[in-house]
Amino acid sequence: MKRLSDIGEFGFIDLIKKGALKRPGVIKGIGDDTAVLSLNKDKFLLFTTDMLIEDVHFLASAKARDIGYKAMACNISDIAAMGGIPTYAVVSIGLPVHKPLSFALNIYKGINALCRKFNAAVVGGDTVKSDKVVVNIALLGEVRKKDLVLRNGARKGDQIFVTGPLGNSLKTGRHLSFIPRVKEAQYLVRNFNPTAMIDISDGLAADLGHILEQSKVGAILHEKKIPFAPGAALKNALYDGEDFELLFTLPILQAKMLLKQKGLRFYHIGEITKEREIIRIHDKNNQLRTIQAIGYKHF
Amino acid sequence: MKRLSDIGEFGFIDLIKKGALKRPGVIKGIGDDTAVLSLNKDKFLLFTTDMLIEDVHFLASAKARDIGYKAMACNISDIAAMGGIPTYAVVSIGLPVHKPLSFALNIYKGINALCRKFNAAVVGGDTVKSDKVVVNIALLGEVRKKDLVLRNGARKGDQIFVTGPLGNSLKTGRHLSFIPRVKEAQYLVRNFNPTAMIDISDGLAADLGHILEQSKVGAILHEKKIPFAPGAALKNALYDGEDFELLFTLPILQAKMLLKQKGLRFYHIGEITKEREIIRIHDKNNQLRTIQAIGYKHF
Repeated sequence: MKRLSDIGEFGFIDLIKKGALKRPGVIKGIGDDTAVLSLNKDKFLLFTTDMLIEDVHFLASAKARDIGYKAMACNISDIAAMGGIPTYAVVSIGLPVHKPLSFALNIYKGINALCRKFNAAVVGGDTVKSDKVVVNIALLGEVRKKDLVLRNGARKGDQIFVTGPLGNSLKTGRHLSFIPRVKEAQYLVRNFNPTAMIDISDGLAADLGHILEQSKVGAILHEKKIPFAPGAALKNALYDGEDFELLFTLPILQAKMLLKQKGLRFYHIGEITKEREIIRIHDKNNQLRTIQAIGYKHF
Repeated sequence: MKRLSDIGEFGFIDLIKKGALKRPGVIKGIGDDTAVLSLNKDKFLLFTTDMLIEDVHFLASAKARDIGYKAMACNISDIAAMGGIPTYAVVSIGLPVHKPLSFALNIYKGINALCRKFNAAVVGGDTVKSDKVVVNIALLGEVRKKDLVLRNGARKGDQIFVTGPLGNSLKTGRHLSFIPRVKEAQYLVRNFNPTAMIDISDGLAADLGHILEQSKVGAILHEKKIPFAPGAALKNALYDGEDFELLFTLPILQAKMLLKQKGLRFYHIGEITKEREIIRIHDKNNQLRTIQAIGYKHF
């Protein structure tokens, strides 16, 4: 009997993608941070969803407000990675019947804190009983057509950046309190032309792998340039996941301009090469070695 | 300690609604079958979500295809109840790691069967591990502005209709295989002016109660006119839930015209009265008694 683990989450996504119906109006379907749909002359509609489950994405001891916050923040991070801004959300919550009312309300407090910050609104939802706490948010967003950034535009010579320190997000609890990088992404798409962008949810190596696969290129990372979060080593930065920083590529002349600006912090960590889907790391001992584009596996 | 059960699902929805942020572009937020959002000159965007959980909405023995089908059908039914047609879906699936790959793929088979029938498309999703099977679909739809039907327009003298037999849906397995009433709803909104419409998910009494509450009116139902599904008695038709038939109201002259048409089947079951939120039933012994607008309770 074949299991999901035999083909992995991404093998499964490929199968789903093949089976999905084609429909006019789908600019980009399954396989990027969000779907991209036609909306009007100037803008595309973005559409994404994330499911968080007790004991998988958060501990049973996690605070309700943090769970709601994380569920909304993951989705906003996906919208940011397309160059967009969030607009409307629908929220499904599965709750054990013994939970206090305050638990359910605090999930919404976490969600609404981000709604206020990013001018988004919850417009519907579903509340059902469940043995374990489950929160699913589906989020819409908008992006100006000229601002849209997919995963497939990275070219040889482009420079690779991240928006913040990586690794150890689960241990430090940062995965429950990160601020999705909407401001940084908006600054980028309005002032530069990023050629590819993704939010780091599976880990730097895996998510860089997604850009490389879709852009049909390779990458060299410089260990000395990768910003580590407190307590994180290289392996944490590469493989831990749930950082929710943005990873993006810029043509070299724009990269130089970006590094000169003083407002927001961007970290230059490497460059795109032509060796398709090969990630090499230039380590602190000046050795060049190849690493695998792997990350957190659900199955 | 206050529990969700102390205020009920609808008391909870009221609290969430009060806490939700206001945002321009929201024509109708929390509290109807779907949210209604501004889209363009002629149409509104519809947005809805439903979460199905093993042992709550389907048995552990249910077929994967049926689970996927039901998850999609519930959402399409909500879009139909607004007068709209479905367009794009995102699908989140929580799966035990021991499940065969075929189980995951068959969930999508059920979803895609309905996508083909109604020209909708899956454009994204999330697949995570979970102890129990969880399927959440968020669905977008479109409705011509003049076709939009909310729950709040029923007026004294309007006639009450349903689109099919009621009751026993869980026992007979109809809740896993019903065809969402898009065709009937489209026929209605294009040829008539329904004053209120809802899909029957909580049961006739409860869902009629939602229309009465939002329209600030009452209703009389005629037992002899209510269509019962095989094996169903009056109490099943009133309280069982998961029928996914449409319940709607029409001004009396239009009701007479609707009953004359021969194409689609609509069942005339009662009329709207001015006694706010009171449901009375004219039973088979010619007695008039008041019934409660209650239905399935998660909490």
